Amino acid sequence: MSDAINRHWLLLDRPKGGNFTEVLSLREEPAPVAGEGQFRVRTIHLSLDPTNAVWMQYDSYLPAVPLNSTMRGLVLGVVDQSNHPKFKVGDIVTGMGGWADYTISDGSAFGRVPAIPGLPLTAYMGPLGMTGATAYFGLLDIGRPKAGETVVVSAAAGAVGSLVGQIAKIKGCRAVGIAGSDEKCAWLTGELGYDAAINYKAKGWQKALKAAVPDGIDIYFENVGGDITEAALSLLNVKGRIPFCGAISQYNATEPPPGPRNLSVLVSRRARMEGFLVLDYNSRLGEMYAEMGPWVAEGRIKWKVDLDQGLENTLTSFAKLFTGGNTGKLVVQVSEEPAR
Amino acid sequence: MSDAINRHWLLLDRPKGGNFTEVLSLREEPAPVAGEGQFRVRTIHLSLDPTNAVWMQYDSYLPAVPLNSTMRGLVLGVVDQSNHPKFKVGDIVTGMGGWADYTISDGSAFGRVPAIPGLPLTAYMGPLGMTGATAYFGLLDIGRPKAGETVVVSAAAGAVGSLVGQIAKIKGCRAVGIAGSDEKCAWLTGELGYDAAINYKAKGWQKALKAAVPDGIDIYFENVGGDITEAALSLLNVKGRIPFCGAISQYNATEPPPGPRNLSVLVSRRARMEGFLVLDYNSRLGEMYAEMGPWVAEGRIKWKVDLDQGLENTLTSFAKLFTGGNTGKLVVQVSEEPAR
Repeated sequence: MSDAINRHWLLLDRPKGGNFTEVLSLREEPAPVAGEGQFRVRTIHLSLDPTNAVWMQYDSYLPAVPLNSTMRGLVLGVVDQSNHPKFKVGDIVTGMGGWADYTISDGSAFGRVPAIPGLPLTAYMGPLGMTGATAYFGLLDIGRPKAGETVVVSAAAGAVGSLVGQIAKIKGCRAVGIAGSDEKCAWLTGELGYDAAINYKAKGWQKALKAAVPDGIDIYFENVGGDITEAALSLLNVKGRIPFCGAISQYNATEPPPGPRNLSVLVSRRARMEGFLVLDYNSRLGEMYAEMGPWVAEGRIKWKVDLDQGLENTLTSFAKLFTGGNTGKLVVQVSEEPAR
Repeated sequence: MSDAINRHWLLLDRPKGGNFTEVLSLREEPAPVAGEGQFRVRTIHLSLDPTNAVWMQYDSYLPAVPLNSTMRGLVLGVVDQSNHPKFKVGDIVTGMGGWADYTISDGSAFGRVPAIPGLPLTAYMGPLGMTGATAYFGLLDIGRPKAGETVVVSAAAGAVGSLVGQIAKIKGCRAVGIAGSDEKCAWLTGELGYDAAINYKAKGWQKALKAAVPDGIDIYFENVGGDITEAALSLLNVKGRIPFCGAISQYNATEPPPGPRNLSVLVSRRARMEGFLVLDYNSRLGEMYAEMGPWVAEGRIKWKVDLDQGLENTLTSFAKLFTGGNTGKLVVQVSEEPAR
């Protein structure tokens, strides 16, 4: 396979204000070959996530992607060359790779996906992948919901948010979603079982949110920042919890935007705001597979993949994350699945 | 004693921008008399605290003080009339009273101070009062310091802050204080044993703060808000904790000021910001007396009361809280202590 071509997106500069098309360029080169102790992954699916924009810009929980190197991305793929004792050709693996056709790995950043019958591979990019783990551990480990409590989720029609509300419902909570269109809201309440959904682009949405949480908010799952955070803070109950997953409204800001003006609500409500990263839960993914796996396999958890085709279209897909263009987990299909 | 006069500060309007002198007026009336099941407290010391400004303005963790009623305040006093089975004339008590010579109580908001030999009564307004409990439970219960960690305290020369750093030192931490003058900083490092102190009014203070925390910040004890919060967030370690005590820079703002622009540091550092109120620890004050009592009695914890004289001078004293005019716990002596 040494005559394979590796297309890959090269990061040429730090993006500013979301000008991704100006700083990323698709290049071709001969595919890399697995060396001693290594294996090669052929990308089937590339996960596109808001946090990718952070990786392009600055050091955060991971170092920024170096300029003039391949953009980093979460991939699901098949091992097509192996000199590694624990991975063999044909294994389906997921882990940290690149926006590229091929990734070479020593195994440290990849794991095999569990074999749960009847699920398409995209499930491991969605409810049983990092997205699912973000929702699962963020809500349960950081938010610690109790039956009867009210959980409000921002970016509720997004990959993570759409799962958070469903997990909250399974745990006996009232789930209220905030999303950016009536269609998304209809999906949340109609298909996903959210108790209520608020379109934050509609006039009077703050009042609608207040009406949707007659007992206040016990858990606000934070994905967005900005006005929505302020509205949620103002309705937070005593001993409320805010699992802080991200602030998508701010990832591409050229000036750091101000934080919530009413942050000191945390004092009067004795509330907790706590950040978390799914990477910290790598050693606990088994808990998620054990509890979420059956929910997903039985259809108790509904999920949607927004599956775009072709590595060459990655930037068009990626832009959707920041314009609200996607519903569900955004994935680019880079190559065909092997027959299973 | 029915011919006693009760001077009291009446709240006439909600203050705006710190115009306390325009909305509070000192009045006189015959002192109230204890009815059935009640006792009367003669105020000896009145505690002045930043949170008083919140009580004047709006409903928070306590309802706003009603207009045209006596301003609420924490007092220490002596029972001088009693028809209550558990409190007798001569008891020294502390609790929620008013900015007034006398308070009538049914006992629910007052408790007797413990008898620790050799301590002046002002200790129960300071390190062994609500101020001490705020520092003690905020640092230990919310911050959960471990020996060797770095604790940064804002408003470090204030009543609460000056105790937080000393408790941190006793627990084996590095303590760094932030205060508003070189004199205050000298007091922190010279007398209180802080490892370093930063004058946030000096040029280049952010760099000085960074240099003072070579291992980063594990706990940031939040008293102030604003720039100082942003600086502390930027230096916060992974799994850092922010006990959120208050935001004194914002209590008198006419417009709600923006929150920290870098709040999402909480995500990348997997950090926790948690508000607390000392009132929630009323049932655990015994823990504080047991551990802090000896520290205070033995002089391991140093403390300072800024004791002003005369109920009529309350507003002049109160203004000092917001101009940085006080060092240590601000108390107004309203009447003489009984001989003990």
